[in-house]
Amino acid sequence: MKILLIGASGHIGQTVIAALDGRHEVITAGRHSGDVRLDIEDENSIIELFRRLPRLDAVAVATGGRNGHLAPLSEMRAEHYRVGLESKLLGQVNTVLHGMDKLNDGGSFTLVGGVWDPQSIVPLFSNLYMVNGALEAFVVAAATELPRRQRINLVAPLLLSESAPQYGHLFRGAPQVSAAEVARAYSLSIEGIQSGQIYRFGAGHG
Amino acid sequence: MKILLIGASGHIGQTVIAALDGRHEVITAGRHSGDVRLDIEDENSIIELFRRLPRLDAVAVATGGRNGHLAPLSEMRAEHYRVGLESKLLGQVNTVLHGMDKLNDGGSFTLVGGVWDPQSIVPLFSNLYMVNGALEAFVVAAATELPRRQRINLVAPLLLSESAPQYGHLFRGAPQVSAAEVARAYSLSIEGIQSGQIYRFGAGHG
Repeated sequence: MKILLIGASGHIGQTVIAALDGRHEVITAGRHSGDVRLDIEDENSIIELFRRLPRLDAVAVATGGRNGHLAPLSEMRAEHYRVGLESKLLGQVNTVLHGMDKLNDGGSFTLVGGVWDPQSIVPLFSNLYMVNGALEAFVVAAATELPRRQRINLVAPLLLSESAPQYGHLFRGAPQVSAAEVARAYSLSIEGIQSGQIYRFGAGHG
Repeated sequence: MKILLIGASGHIGQTVIAALDGRHEVITAGRHSGDVRLDIEDENSIIELFRRLPRLDAVAVATGGRNGHLAPLSEMRAEHYRVGLESKLLGQVNTVLHGMDKLNDGGSFTLVGGVWDPQSIVPLFSNLYMVNGALEAFVVAAATELPRRQRINLVAPLLLSESAPQYGHLFRGAPQVSAAEVARAYSLSIEGIQSGQIYRFGAGHG
């Protein structure tokens, strides 16, 4: 397969490459690194990227752009919620809308969300939970409307164990998941046959 | 209780009034009708409304503004998704953010979303499903961060039987729910004690 991987430089991206690169041709795209340049928050950058690329069998996203604005609910304003809506949400939605024409029959989109069930909520993250909820519903809906048996799934990890040294203080006591476990879900989405699935990680406690 | 009901003129709003008005003081707010004027898509209109109102025991929303842009996925663009994000999503989020200071201890927000599980998906509605998913996650997160034991819940109806003559052709075979059933959930949220709950209607088939 010819696979476009957006956001290849992070923990998840690196592990996805390790999991797929032997069997497939992986084209990496990133803002500052990768085979091709892409700013996922810039719709024109996405359009331009797909114009230049050959036909693809899979498009996988392993980055959320700026992700979201972290602040207590009482300090949040609409403009703060727009940070995540315009980057992690609409950046990935634009990737689907503009990538559709370049994706082969039966090809897959794999987007990245995150866990937001009541057992996993921590303070400050309401922007990201909102975006993750939006992505889940978008993926479930888009799976029914994509053309030519194209598929779409969402990988929804909580805190990566690899990120715990940096961000663990924001998720005290929350479950963690390794990037290798998360990469397994990318493989299931890309190399498998499923569509409209939300692969949740680290939601439970038992 | 003193209850602000935003969007009182629709099927849900009218039934919520019928369910609550005898026991409580309901102040209705709407773009073109109601006790006070409010454009929920205009943040300044929300700020101005809460500045003028007395302290409240409940704020309930029964309208989604323009709701969303209906189109096949292949014709959707980011600007179309922004219709629902800026109106039904951020309109209600702004209502919470700016209403928080005027809501009494233990008071409740009741927002309106919609069902988006795989069994309920119909074509054209990906903008609204996205918004409904975002609202669910926002409500679950906000419930943990609201001050002074304030509560927040989401009512998530599918097609109202009262709306079926007008919109039923877009939801062939989908379950329906009466506005009176939906109003019951508003009463549970406003007059009860729950928080962080999603009251889903019309999701199943059995």
